[in-house]
Amino acid sequence: MKIYAYGIRDDEKPSLKEWETAHPEVEVAFTQELLTPETAKNAAGADGVVVYQQLPYTRETLQALADQGIHQMSLRNVGIDNIDLKAAKELGFKISNVAAYSPNAIAEHAAIQLARILRRSKELDAKVAKRDLRWAPTIGREVRMQTVGVVGTGRIGRVLIQILQGFGAKIVAYDIFKNPDIDKQGLYVDSLDELYAKSDVISLHVPSVKENIHMINKDSIAKMKDGVVLVNVARGDLVDTDAVVAALDSGKVSGMVMDVYENEIGIFNEDWEGKKFPDARLDDLIDRPNVLVTPHTAFYTTKAVLEMVHQSFDAAVAIANGQETRNLVKF
Amino acid sequence: MKIYAYGIRDDEKPSLKEWETAHPEVEVAFTQELLTPETAKNAAGADGVVVYQQLPYTRETLQALADQGIHQMSLRNVGIDNIDLKAAKELGFKISNVAAYSPNAIAEHAAIQLARILRRSKELDAKVAKRDLRWAPTIGREVRMQTVGVVGTGRIGRVLIQILQGFGAKIVAYDIFKNPDIDKQGLYVDSLDELYAKSDVISLHVPSVKENIHMINKDSIAKMKDGVVLVNVARGDLVDTDAVVAALDSGKVSGMVMDVYENEIGIFNEDWEGKKFPDARLDDLIDRPNVLVTPHTAFYTTKAVLEMVHQSFDAAVAIANGQETRNLVKF
Ligand SMILES: NC(=O)c1ccc[n+]([C@@H]2O[C@H](COP(=O)([O-])OP(=O)(O)OC[C@H]3O[C@@H](n4cnc5c(N)ncnc54)[C@H](O)[C@@H]3O)[C@@H](O)[C@H]2O)c1
Ligand SMILES: NC(=O)c1ccc[n+]([C@@H]2O[C@H](COP(=O)([O-])OP(=O)(O)OC[C@H]3O[C@@H](n4cnc5c(N)ncnc54)[C@H](O)[C@@H]3O)[C@@H](O)[C@H]2O)c1
Repeated sequence: MKIYAYGIRDDEKPSLKEWETAHPEVEVAFTQELLTPETAKNAAGADGVVVYQQLPYTRETLQALADQGIHQMSLRNVGIDNIDLKAAKELGFKISNVAAYSPNAIAEHAAIQLARILRRSKELDAKVAKRDLRWAPTIGREVRMQTVGVVGTGRIGRVLIQILQGFGAKIVAYDIFKNPDIDKQGLYVDSLDELYAKSDVISLHVPSVKENIHMINKDSIAKMKDGVVLVNVARGDLVDTDAVVAALDSGKVSGMVMDVYENEIGIFNEDWEGKKFPDARLDDLIDRPNVLVTPHTAFYTTKAVLEMVHQSFDAAVAIANGQETRNLVKF
Repeated sequence: MKIYAYGIRDDEKPSLKEWETAHPEVEVAFTQELLTPETAKNAAGADGVVVYQQLPYTRETLQALADQGIHQMSLRNVGIDNIDLKAAKELGFKISNVAAYSPNAIAEHAAIQLARILRRSKELDAKVAKRDLRWAPTIGREVRMQTVGVVGTGRIGRVLIQILQGFGAKIVAYDIFKNPDIDKQGLYVDSLDELYAKSDVISLHVPSVKENIHMINKDSIAKMKDGVVLVNVARGDLVDTDAVVAALDSGKVSGMVMDVYENEIGIFNEDWEGKKFPDARLDDLIDRPNVLVTPHTAFYTTKAVLEMVHQSFDAAVAIANGQETRNLVKF
């Protein structure tokens, strides 16, 4: 059995090594290069490929794999939007992904960053960096004193609730499908409007399906408490950025955590030092003392990367062996 | 009944206003000035004074109060080391303090900052600030994957344990007096050495009594795991700073949270912009990407300040009325 992996980053190598050691029966080869019609040739002789890239998996690319007799592809990430699924179907591909690598990675990031906004951590860090060691006026707020509204109680939202309960915060939650555990705790409110009205902090953990696009907009912000803190570590297009900028200017929104951004594709995970962002709003947001921008790194922990590598290799082997795997994508 | 308050900061005024509104029977007057033999005269006619300062309360100062017929003093903070207690006794003073204003303020700060060290937040913030939006190689670790050693399970240590349990971390604890709740959970190890050997993160929550001075030193660090993260939001002199600097250099200690510092008096809560610290080690520590220095602000939250103001005024009124108060200092 031979598996060939594309786009392997340095931070993935320890997890890869670990998996190899535990699976001496599998021959593993890998490259830093992404999967293209050209690099597909390097997988010759492999039973399956393991991949992770933003670059499209085109018909040509899939055809190039099929030409080597490879009809399976295991994603180390979750998203399948960049795959030509029609071509994949026609070529008889089986595709797996990793849907739940570590909800904790994302929930922890949300909790830490929202606590930092409450604590005015960016202002305080900047003061210390320039040797102003005075406390005042940089006074913080405690997480336990807040009512946090959690929108979406799926994998990530539920972990966030546990973390915030450890802090002693009051939780109100909303989801179109109620989770029995959260329901038993009596945390659900009946509508998003009720959540908006009651929350000091609002954290989004829903997918960016059509109905949710720009759910945070001028109208919904108007329903929120004055000085609300917004947290978006879900998807950029859940938020109307212009509406949030206006609300930050007016003080209606007192702070914002952004791990995702409306127009992030092609911007995040790139080096812009000395260059100009295509979108000037991002410049402004990064420089605000009450906004914490991270470039979609909420997921980026050693544990998550380990799960992405191990689950994808496990799935590749299972598919090659004709076995069942819960990681198989239906399309 | 009249209470006169010294050293009132802007951030205390909302809490003071709130207390006044709730106590219309008490006449409140206050000043930004600290209590000195001169300013003591401004308290003439008051039944008690409420104070908070690092400046010593000398015999002369206490005498000046006594000369106005005032024989009581209510601290908004906990520390009484700057009071001439012999003089206070001879002049028949009753003194109150606020010992537990908000253990959560300090425990939350410890949790947030230690999570930030694990997440390499200072490095990531610096990258984003200079527009380098690439993830790699700034990969983080999750709190839930860590064994955290909590030294001291008093008011603050116990709240920290609750917060970290919300994250899903494994806790090991040590205290010379076992707390029944923590004991029932089976969290105690038998010795500090065992805690040092087992912990990925070690957080101090003990007083700086003689036996604890420099408990973190070359020898104890040698007993810790490679890459341990240290957290000190308790007292600066618990840590031998030179030993920690050496261990940061060698990589034995992978990161440090410092809200307190060995030689902080006269340095913290001052503006050093454009000036030179008396202690060059602090400059070095502040600039390290894996050290988070804050100037003794762990306590500095709106909730803690509210408790400090309300409890001190309550105690001042109780003493003036000859009533019992749990805030009375025995000396
Ligand atoms: N920042 C990152 O690194 C990162 C990483 C992974 C996932 N995410 C994002 O986090 C979000 C949550 O992921 P998850 O794994 O918890 O998903 P999930 O599918 O487990 O949970 C999503 C929940 O949202 C609910 N929901 C959908 N629309 C809703 C609406 N309009 N109102 C209320 N509830 C609604 C669903 O019923 C479900 O319970 C997704 O947007 C995902 O893309 C971000
Ligand atoms: N950074 C800040 O803003 C801030 C604010 C308040 C308090 N503090 C500091 O935090 C620390 C803890 O405060 P607290 O209110 O929790 O105190 P506490 O008195 O409630 O608890 C201290 C605990 O430490 C234990 N202890 C003492 N010596 C020990 C040793 N050698 N080994 C193990 N356990 C030992 C005691 O038995 C007690 O349980 C103190 O040093 C205090 O000065 C810092």
